[in-house]
Amino acid sequence: MSLEKELDSVESVLQKLPENDAKETSRLLYGTGVKDLEVSEKCMKLVSRYKMELVKCKFDHKEEQLRPARPVRVALFQQKLPVPLTFPIYKVKTEMYTMAMDAIKIAAKGGANVFCFQQAWNMPYAFCSGESMPWSEYAEKAEEGATTRILQTLAVENNMVIISTILERDENFEDRIWNTSVVIDNHGIVLGKQRRNHVPVVENSNEPTYYCEGDIGHPVFETEFGRIGVNICYERHYPLCWLALALNGAEIVVNPCGALGPEAEVLWNIEARNAAIANGYYVCAVNRVGMEIYEHEYEDEMGNIVHHRDSGAFFGSSYVAAPNGSRSPGLSRTKTGVLIAEFDLNLCRQEKDKRGLGLTHRLSLYKDFLSRITSTNFVPQIVKKHCQCQDK
Amino acid sequence: MSLEKELDSVESVLQKLPENDAKETSRLLYGTGVKDLEVSEKCMKLVSRYKMELVKCKFDHKEEQLRPARPVRVALFQQKLPVPLTFPIYKVKTEMYTMAMDAIKIAAKGGANVFCFQQAWNMPYAFCSGESMPWSEYAEKAEEGATTRILQTLAVENNMVIISTILERDENFEDRIWNTSVVIDNHGIVLGKQRRNHVPVVENSNEPTYYCEGDIGHPVFETEFGRIGVNICYERHYPLCWLALALNGAEIVVNPCGALGPEAEVLWNIEARNAAIANGYYVCAVNRVGMEIYEHEYEDEMGNIVHHRDSGAFFGSSYVAAPNGSRSPGLSRTKTGVLIAEFDLNLCRQEKDKRGLGLTHRLSLYKDFLSRITSTNFVPQIVKKHCQCQDK
Repeated sequence: MSLEKELDSVESVLQKLPENDAKETSRLLYGTGVKDLEVSEKCMKLVSRYKMELVKCKFDHKEEQLRPARPVRVALFQQKLPVPLTFPIYKVKTEMYTMAMDAIKIAAKGGANVFCFQQAWNMPYAFCSGESMPWSEYAEKAEEGATTRILQTLAVENNMVIISTILERDENFEDRIWNTSVVIDNHGIVLGKQRRNHVPVVENSNEPTYYCEGDIGHPVFETEFGRIGVNICYERHYPLCWLALALNGAEIVVNPCGALGPEAEVLWNIEARNAAIANGYYVCAVNRVGMEIYEHEYEDEMGNIVHHRDSGAFFGSSYVAAPNGSRSPGLSRTKTGVLIAEFDLNLCRQEKDKRGLGLTHRLSLYKDFLSRITSTNFVPQIVKKHCQCQDK
Repeated sequence: MSLEKELDSVESVLQKLPENDAKETSRLLYGTGVKDLEVSEKCMKLVSRYKMELVKCKFDHKEEQLRPARPVRVALFQQKLPVPLTFPIYKVKTEMYTMAMDAIKIAAKGGANVFCFQQAWNMPYAFCSGESMPWSEYAEKAEEGATTRILQTLAVENNMVIISTILERDENFEDRIWNTSVVIDNHGIVLGKQRRNHVPVVENSNEPTYYCEGDIGHPVFETEFGRIGVNICYERHYPLCWLALALNGAEIVVNPCGALGPEAEVLWNIEARNAAIANGYYVCAVNRVGMEIYEHEYEDEMGNIVHHRDSGAFFGSSYVAAPNGSRSPGLSRTKTGVLIAEFDLNLCRQEKDKRGLGLTHRLSLYKDFLSRITSTNFVPQIVKKHCQCQDK
């Protein structure tokens, strides 16, 4: 099902309201203090040349007396498949690279310091198929793979941290595949990687048939543009995963996704924002966009059709959420685009101080609770009264 | 600052959009499957007699083959102070009772099985003042206090579970005060209570000067209308608190609040919904509403004004959130009102099964993480590269 006939974004529709209603509604739904961001003319020219949507904004910041502001610009890139999946996979990959290079140029001219790709950005999102070949061929080494090599060069050229989420093949360990975010700093150095901890086993999404559960924990990468963590795709459903990144000190969490379907779309506008609010960091939620039509249906060995050519439409709508509940406008539900947002990292600590969340977090209480629930003799704390009401 | 001059609710404004835009926007913002609920004529007559706002709705449900639907109707009651705070406190309390009885009658005629009060419902929300007298006089015994006694009678009469959140005085233990939700079943039996675990220490909210941190854990109360837990007010900011209730088996979590201010209002529409989504239960988020104007400013012993007469306007907007991301319309931002919502408890397990959250929750991973972070030698997992970039 295509989304093209539906509205392009909620934000664009709200502008049809009477001015004051639009303003008030927007304040209640999106928070305050998000303004337009000025970018260079060169940036705007590239946007027009490459025919990409550009959304840009700047979050308000508050001056401190002892600490200078730490402004950071992030770029989120949501990317449609540029060629049909009837093309051979090397061709798909090459075209994805080309588009990505265009987007990185736009982001660089827009002054971005951190560039965030969507989930499994250099391939179709084939994990719903259950079909092994050719999709597993996309997997490559994280640190020394071709994709990382290309991005290292671009990171240096553009003085940009890049978070690249791909399918990783570990050739030194059973040829295992992982879903991995590679973090490259602005000097082209691979700081490290995060392997997705929570792999969905959901209806027709057969992701555990492709890759393993992450074994790295919840690392946070210290860069010149803040401490960055990654929550990969489906992990957005787990408050504990978001929390662990906060407790390790994240100021920005990138959430590269491949989300589709009407229920997921309703959740989309809530989960990343709640994570930003609850944990006192910024979230860059980047989603895939567009239909991905496969060349053929996939049949299992018994001849049953296991997946259809049309895997549904990813709904884009990438956005940035701030720790004070404000959020950026979203990118389109249907188009390739770049979102550039500027914010001050200092707001993270300001919000934590203001709401005093750490003061009364009582982590020991929950450590004890999780210890009990993961023991074999856990008894939930359920209060029942077996009383006269049972005798009726 | 009064909210009366602003819009009454976002939901009411969205109706001004062109029909198709309104429908699509509402779907993306509020989810699907929430329809009007029919209630008896008697109920509507009472609404008109008592001049209260009534919002009513019914969430879609899916039939199962082996388990009958378990429909439950909840009523959320948000309540303005009925008399100025120049009145003596017994008078304020009596008037609050009278309004509550009216609301319970409306809820009963509307078929409600569970009745949810706002935070500290029978008193002004005086915890911002820092002033001890007369506000601490509102504290009373949880199980045998006058308020509970009155509600026990009403619970039996109306076959209704009642969750009553008050200030508790424990006369047998240092005369301590707690912020407590008393859970009374539909046979008038006090099933038990929950004492708020997270007490805010936030700017001008001096709640720890009134009451202690809860010592009961995260109990869930098994009633004929589902397993009910309580997350009290500020605890809504803590994903761990919501999670513990889920792991103890909650199907409904009541979140009685006293929330005000523009930032809290933006968060309001996110946090309870996210909790419902992440944990697979319904959340009944009930907020106080209206201005609370004190008789006088409060001066400390040095003669400094510590709190002003006007403590701001609570923004109401009580609503119900479902585990599939859908939510009810909200009550008004400014008016006393009752929200009656019907839903099927079976959706909780259906959603957990559908999204497979428990399958890949990896609780042991987080047990280990919280054990490390609460130990004295915790080292956060931060990846740094001290490399050539430091030498520039």
